[in-house]
Amino acid sequence: MTKDVTTWFGTAHEAAASARRTSTDLLQRVEHRLRSFLSAEREVWADVDERAVVTIDALSELMASGGKRIRPAFCITGYLAAGGDPDDSGVVAAAAALEMLHISALVHDDVLDDSSRRRGLPTVHAKHTALHHSRGWQGESRRFGEGVAILVGDLALVYSGELMSRAPATAVPEWNKLRSEVMIGQYMDIAAAAEFSVDPRLSRWIALIKSGRYTIHRPLVVGASAAGRGELAPAFEEYGEAVGEAFQLRDDLLDAFGDSADTGKPAGLDFSQHKMTLLLGWAMQRDERIHSLITEPGHTPDEVRRRLVDTGVPDDVEKHIAGLVERGCKAIADAPIDQVWRNELTDMARRVAYRNA
Amino acid sequence: MTKDVTTWFGTAHEAAASARRTSTDLLQRVEHRLRSFLSAEREVWADVDERAVVTIDALSELMASGGKRIRPAFCITGYLAAGGDPDDSGVVAAAAALEMLHISALVHDDVLDDSSRRRGLPTVHAKHTALHHSRGWQGESRRFGEGVAILVGDLALVYSGELMSRAPATAVPEWNKLRSEVMIGQYMDIAAAAEFSVDPRLSRWIALIKSGRYTIHRPLVVGASAAGRGELAPAFEEYGEAVGEAFQLRDDLLDAFGDSADTGKPAGLDFSQHKMTLLLGWAMQRDERIHSLITEPGHTPDEVRRRLVDTGVPDDVEKHIAGLVERGCKAIADAPIDQVWRNELTDMARRVAYRNA
Repeated sequence: MTKDVTTWFGTAHEAAASARRTSTDLLQRVEHRLRSFLSAEREVWADVDERAVVTIDALSELMASGGKRIRPAFCITGYLAAGGDPDDSGVVAAAAALEMLHISALVHDDVLDDSSRRRGLPTVHAKHTALHHSRGWQGESRRFGEGVAILVGDLALVYSGELMSRAPATAVPEWNKLRSEVMIGQYMDIAAAAEFSVDPRLSRWIALIKSGRYTIHRPLVVGASAAGRGELAPAFEEYGEAVGEAFQLRDDLLDAFGDSADTGKPAGLDFSQHKMTLLLGWAMQRDERIHSLITEPGHTPDEVRRRLVDTGVPDDVEKHIAGLVERGCKAIADAPIDQVWRNELTDMARRVAYRNA
Repeated sequence: MTKDVTTWFGTAHEAAASARRTSTDLLQRVEHRLRSFLSAEREVWADVDERAVVTIDALSELMASGGKRIRPAFCITGYLAAGGDPDDSGVVAAAAALEMLHISALVHDDVLDDSSRRRGLPTVHAKHTALHHSRGWQGESRRFGEGVAILVGDLALVYSGELMSRAPATAVPEWNKLRSEVMIGQYMDIAAAAEFSVDPRLSRWIALIKSGRYTIHRPLVVGASAAGRGELAPAFEEYGEAVGEAFQLRDDLLDAFGDSADTGKPAGLDFSQHKMTLLLGWAMQRDERIHSLITEPGHTPDEVRRRLVDTGVPDDVEKHIAGLVERGCKAIADAPIDQVWRNELTDMARRVAYRNA
């Protein structure tokens, strides 16, 4: 407090740096919690049989291979913005639980999408399918590899619940909503892709649930409720849904036009998996030939990309992203939180909307 | 209390009937909790989109199609034996959580095993694979069907955690052990089957974890800890591991020799999936040709069955089951619980060891 000096700019700068230090410190504790949790589990199981640790090691590898920790960051920001005590370990547990849940979702998602690589490494099911094949084991290699991924994802889901059992009980209702919502949202996503439904309302709703709520809105509210301030939920909802839509639109653009060296996954996955993204939904409304470019064999991703650019939709998506960021920032401009956290949330909105991976 | 009259037999009879009524009543409340939980979720989602309730309905159908509710029964018995208040709703939440977790395990297991039927109905993945195929949807039918089953199982896993969040906090550590253990045990099971490992120590350990602990020992301890009496754990562990092994051996015998009209699933699944059950492990130690009967194509389940009978192993397994039931009952003979609950647990041991489905 004695450091708050002279000018408003000086003070604000000091306060911003201090806020950033506090959240960085908490995020490091989340990282430490995740690692120490997994290594304690490994120690318990290593004595039993060498096979037993395979599932745990799969989670540790994925955890160590990268990831932006967006959900823990929003959870901790929501907590600190709500005035939560930075020395309490409850929010660390909640943020670690969110990241572990996300690891589970990634492992299962990669089976749903049959993705071969994630964060620059083979996906869990791809790795174990190949292992089964090379060892000449009994049964079908694909069923084995996907079975391992199902169980590894289940284990992460269970561990996320275990981590959450150390978080404040006030955060649990929002956590429960987040979890069931993401599963149902995922189902709707694969159902819409299978039907290749061209229903912009549905696409938008799926994006809202899978990104806005799961990635931003609910992690913020989990944090705020861990601090006992559930009343911040409406402001965080409005912010999270807008910034989450921007996050998802950036995801769509990165999938279509991004560099797979940055993203760590193959480009154009949404095309090959017939994901009805907002980008594709809008583009098809303007040019219906894009539908057949995607569903009929013999067309390259480059053809889809060129046609997308011709529709002008990518530029419109950029403009829409800018509007969403603005809307998100406006939503927290009047929230009863300290100015330093409004600034931090504004900064975070820009970082998720304009990321390159 | 005023009803405890005249003879020892009369009193015991009265007390036994009353204990049975109390646990039956609690099990009915568990049933009601499961149904009302799912129907409340359905109501929330029905407004969103007709697709959203598909995952919830899959769980309700499986729940309604049968099941022995063994884990809730042991949880409630552990709770009442520990002197828990039958009017408290915490144990109902814990028992419902155990059943929901089991539903999740069944849905994912059926993908791992590629089982087509469960409880007389098509399995979740088989149903949705067929639906995808008949509608001529985009993508691969198998990936879609299995993807739906992954998400339906994930949803049940998440719901089990949500149900458990209403149970006493004292029950949570045992619940956490049970959940992670069953996932790792499942992985070891598919890994051992893929390697077709003939290691009786490993087979026994997998059976211990997958059946003894998951089905009997830990549900009993979840119940006892919900009543605040974790000190009963050692007696329940010894009982649960013995009776659980008997449960698993009966499972092996039913799979090999049972009537699929009773069990609701095809007979001989363990053979075709190369599950190294205790029954098969023992039989192969006596007659190594059984190994090739199972792994080499062109042999019928009947050939395996005949050869198994010739080894005399099924009779030995029956004797071993009888010994395990006796050992389990001895383990609770000295436990600090009321005689009426010792009798009830003895009765339950016989029911699980000598069931026909």
